[in-house]
Amino acid sequence: MTQIESSYIANPQNQTYKRAMANLRSKQDFENTIDVARGLKPADLVLRGAKYLNVFSGEWLDGDIAIFRGKIVGVGEKYEASKVMNLKGRYVVPGFIDSHLHIESTCMVPDQFQKMVLPRGTTGAIVDPHEIANVLGEKGLQYILDCAASSTMDLYIMLSSCVPATSHLETSGAKLSARDLLKFKNHPNVLGLAELMNFRGLLNKDPEVIEKVMAFQDRIIDGHSPMLQGKDLNAYLSCGIHSCHESVTLEEAREKLQKGMQVLLREGSVAKNVRELCKILDAYSSPKVSLCTDDRNPVDIQDEGHIDFLIRTVIKKGIEPEVAYRSASWSTATSYGIKNKGAIAPGFDADLVVLKDYKKVVIESVFKFGRQIKSELDVSDIDVTPPRENSIRYELPQQIDLKISDDSGKFRVIEVIPNQIITNSLEINMGVIDNEIKVDLKKDILKISVLERHGHNKPMVNAFVKGFGLNSGAFGASVAHDSHNVVVVGTNDQDMLECFKWMKTNGGGFVAINNGKVEGSLALPIAGLMTEQPYRVVYKHLKALRKASKRLGCKLEEPFLQLAFLCLPVIPSLKITDLGLVDVNRFKLVELRIS
Amino acid sequence: MTQIESSYIANPQNQTYKRAMANLRSKQDFENTIDVARGLKPADLVLRGAKYLNVFSGEWLDGDIAIFRGKIVGVGEKYEASKVMNLKGRYVVPGFIDSHLHIESTCMVPDQFQKMVLPRGTTGAIVDPHEIANVLGEKGLQYILDCAASSTMDLYIMLSSCVPATSHLETSGAKLSARDLLKFKNHPNVLGLAELMNFRGLLNKDPEVIEKVMAFQDRIIDGHSPMLQGKDLNAYLSCGIHSCHESVTLEEAREKLQKGMQVLLREGSVAKNVRELCKILDAYSSPKVSLCTDDRNPVDIQDEGHIDFLIRTVIKKGIEPEVAYRSASWSTATSYGIKNKGAIAPGFDADLVVLKDYKKVVIESVFKFGRQIKSELDVSDIDVTPPRENSIRYELPQQIDLKISDDSGKFRVIEVIPNQIITNSLEINMGVIDNEIKVDLKKDILKISVLERHGHNKPMVNAFVKGFGLNSGAFGASVAHDSHNVVVVGTNDQDMLECFKWMKTNGGGFVAINNGKVEGSLALPIAGLMTEQPYRVVYKHLKALRKASKRLGCKLEEPFLQLAFLCLPVIPSLKITDLGLVDVNRFKLVELRIS
Repeated sequence: MTQIESSYIANPQNQTYKRAMANLRSKQDFENTIDVARGLKPADLVLRGAKYLNVFSGEWLDGDIAIFRGKIVGVGEKYEASKVMNLKGRYVVPGFIDSHLHIESTCMVPDQFQKMVLPRGTTGAIVDPHEIANVLGEKGLQYILDCAASSTMDLYIMLSSCVPATSHLETSGAKLSARDLLKFKNHPNVLGLAELMNFRGLLNKDPEVIEKVMAFQDRIIDGHSPMLQGKDLNAYLSCGIHSCHESVTLEEAREKLQKGMQVLLREGSVAKNVRELCKILDAYSSPKVSLCTDDRNPVDIQDEGHIDFLIRTVIKKGIEPEVAYRSASWSTATSYGIKNKGAIAPGFDADLVVLKDYKKVVIESVFKFGRQIKSELDVSDIDVTPPRENSIRYELPQQIDLKISDDSGKFRVIEVIPNQIITNSLEINMGVIDNEIKVDLKKDILKISVLERHGHNKPMVNAFVKGFGLNSGAFGASVAHDSHNVVVVGTNDQDMLECFKWMKTNGGGFVAINNGKVEGSLALPIAGLMTEQPYRVVYKHLKALRKASKRLGCKLEEPFLQLAFLCLPVIPSLKITDLGLVDVNRFKLVELRIS
Repeated sequence: MTQIESSYIANPQNQTYKRAMANLRSKQDFENTIDVARGLKPADLVLRGAKYLNVFSGEWLDGDIAIFRGKIVGVGEKYEASKVMNLKGRYVVPGFIDSHLHIESTCMVPDQFQKMVLPRGTTGAIVDPHEIANVLGEKGLQYILDCAASSTMDLYIMLSSCVPATSHLETSGAKLSARDLLKFKNHPNVLGLAELMNFRGLLNKDPEVIEKVMAFQDRIIDGHSPMLQGKDLNAYLSCGIHSCHESVTLEEAREKLQKGMQVLLREGSVAKNVRELCKILDAYSSPKVSLCTDDRNPVDIQDEGHIDFLIRTVIKKGIEPEVAYRSASWSTATSYGIKNKGAIAPGFDADLVVLKDYKKVVIESVFKFGRQIKSELDVSDIDVTPPRENSIRYELPQQIDLKISDDSGKFRVIEVIPNQIITNSLEINMGVIDNEIKVDLKKDILKISVLERHGHNKPMVNAFVKGFGLNSGAFGASVAHDSHNVVVVGTNDQDMLECFKWMKTNGGGFVAINNGKVEGSLALPIAGLMTEQPYRVVYKHLKALRKASKRLGCKLEEPFLQLAFLCLPVIPSLKITDLGLVDVNRFKLVELRIS
């Protein structure tokens, strides 16, 4: 018995062994696998009596699924095993793979993230850690990579390509050059370069962007190209871009599919595109279509589901279940070059979802690498220490300065669109009293302020936003894509200043304050983005925040996520960063007042 | 302008540049590509007016196909270009990729092979050079790799896993260990390990086979598992085997598809399985189904076609053209991890086939890396010197010894099955005169002799074969899978001995001799397997050989190919090698006489 094998037997959850198994099995193990598959030795586990989905032929098949050392070694034949599990009346499908997400958007560290989504069938995810990378740079990347190397679920890492998202429109906590990223290229969990949001930079031949894209020509390069079409889309794809998860209209998704992109149908907490876009999904196109959540918070994961919710949704919209499950598993694995994942066949990892009802996607339990996961209690801890230092590094502001010298002309106002991360750019006549522009609660025009928090001591930026509907109090967030400076929206200056103060005290998070009182909050002390609290606690806090926001008059379903995206200067139309208002279509900073 | 670029302009067929382009473009070229795709600079070539197949959506689309430096940079938009080609009324599909073949089986060196198949639409092939490797070992591998590195068509090399095919049943010219193969693993044209024919060795945990399979777990390992099913197939797949091209029945192919194998539908010159097996091919399964020729000779390529013939055949059998063309291109590229091949979309190599009729697969011309190929004259020479030394290294035999001491009992006789490479094992009462077993022309039972030719001076092996139908003369071949010893079948000893003599004089080949006169021949002086002659000359010789064989009474369509497979001891049931008769099902040498 090899050392590695004896350690497995002593501790079947040993992660090092898991990796060794998945990639390079020992000779003895390899030989045992042959004997077990041939029926000469017993398997570790046999799942018996279920119908299982064949993602190659589209059929539901009968027969044993024999598992040995985490891998499927036999199907379609009767096997002996140390343990036989009767699954009569059940359906087994391959574990779901989320094709694109940011763990930070769940507010949870990877350990809690996997404990929440693995029992819901998501056995793997392709992860872009660009939120924490924007705050902590290489240290943030390294933290996520360390977690990925010892997680129970499969975390495949794409190296964040756009830190910061733009070179001149915001201040981030870190910059990652091509040279910085190349240090991590050969980490075993790294698949390639993460969503190349700066498509304008690429099209304009920005040398730094070109350098990154050229450095990853031999790997996968994820795309991000909302509304990009025609020749500009052709140019983007000619650079070797693999995917896009930003389609909103069916026409947009269809053009991307036709041009060879892996089209990722997204259902996050703000951007909800699956219902419309799943119309491109059929038996022929399914290898080129994947499912992803991108940014989905624990409230939606708990109340609706994770990838299971997306599958349920597209089946409800009329997509054949055999097509939907394939897109959720093998299509993503094969498109991203992930070997031995996403199918129920010999040689594939035993990542499986057992369903009571495959049309309604009712999950009974999950198998990860052959081990049954009934709840988070079955998911091993990730024993990696997160970076815990306070990352809110600004001097407390004393006022929200919106003074002007004369009151003529119109002002730019950001308009939030419910459940979209794009905004409208409005031009509005504002009330000016004592040389200061005032909020207009009747017209739902509130103040919005962004304060740089990475220790560069930049002055605060102030502007106006329409669409939140608050009639008192203020909201604040240190999650503000992608530079994650602190953003506050409010009806009055005092509560806004209290939000900035709360952030500094708590190391960041989400907060709703009314008349100086905290109405709801979630502290996110890990880089101002994540908490180590259990997902159930996070859920409760987020629910309380939603209630608080409703009490303050807010009309949006997800006010904090919508707030967080108001700072992302790569999504049209008008955004705000720590440097000022951004006209995204012109890709430049603009004045509050229209000249 | 970079040096590499100026050399391209001086010589647009410069192969080094082609490779650099396909894999790593220069920065300047990368930037120019962006500008051309955006329409800011003219393309090299625009194909206008055709309908082109989208292998992602299954649609036929309209619009320009813009090509720059060998790559497609734009579709669906109007582009300017140095050259615009009007293709109104035509159909454009991605270049065909043969998913598995042995170039040696065409009797041609790679240079002539590409000149023959490229104008017929085969722009790429996955090649196992195991014939020449069995004769010349690493030197043979290196020759094919050198050719692949400078060919116009794409030649992807799988490193021959079974040289020799069996460890104890034959004598080959070389042995290749895992260590030998690993020297070539990182050659840019190498995809992985070639067809693992010794599936019994793997299932029996032969240490040498295990070592090879383990050494290539991170690459593609092609399979070869005729009639393997059930648990043994599960075991084979648990070792990470990727594909099989040996299915004969629909049931067999379906089981392999269901178990996750890439199913290669084959139509060679002997093994013709496409008509039956294409029934597994539909929109859902098509990514897992490829087309291959395996062993297809120039007569069939000239008279029927190459991969184009397979596509034509499956369309005739009722498969949707959009599905058939996808299997012939993108399915193979994506399954084998070949980037940027097999689709008409930005970023993909401009390997295209222009059709007058897409249902009948009538090819008008071909584009390889953006350059039009109308005939072999447009295909650059491969400037690699082949190994020309005489590889027929035996002492001339003086007799065909079939003497026995008593005449009781039955004898094993190989029965050829027309157009199959499997044989039957017969047990027959033979006539014995003067203690010598005699041929029986009435019952079509002829002598068959195999003589080791790699310089080991083994004694000749003699036995009997039924099914050739010769009534006079003899046939000989130095192409005799996989060890390529010389095999001769004949009605009389004198003509058989003349065949052995002709082989030695000509360095190997195919010959038909009657009453001492050469009735037809093709000399194959490169390893006794290939000739440098133009394919048209090879075609004529092979045609003449067919006619000669008919004159001598032969009933088989492809007597020389069937002869060549009688020595392959990994294909059931009864075979003959230089060491004796082989019972393939028992995987052991057996006596001529049944004890």
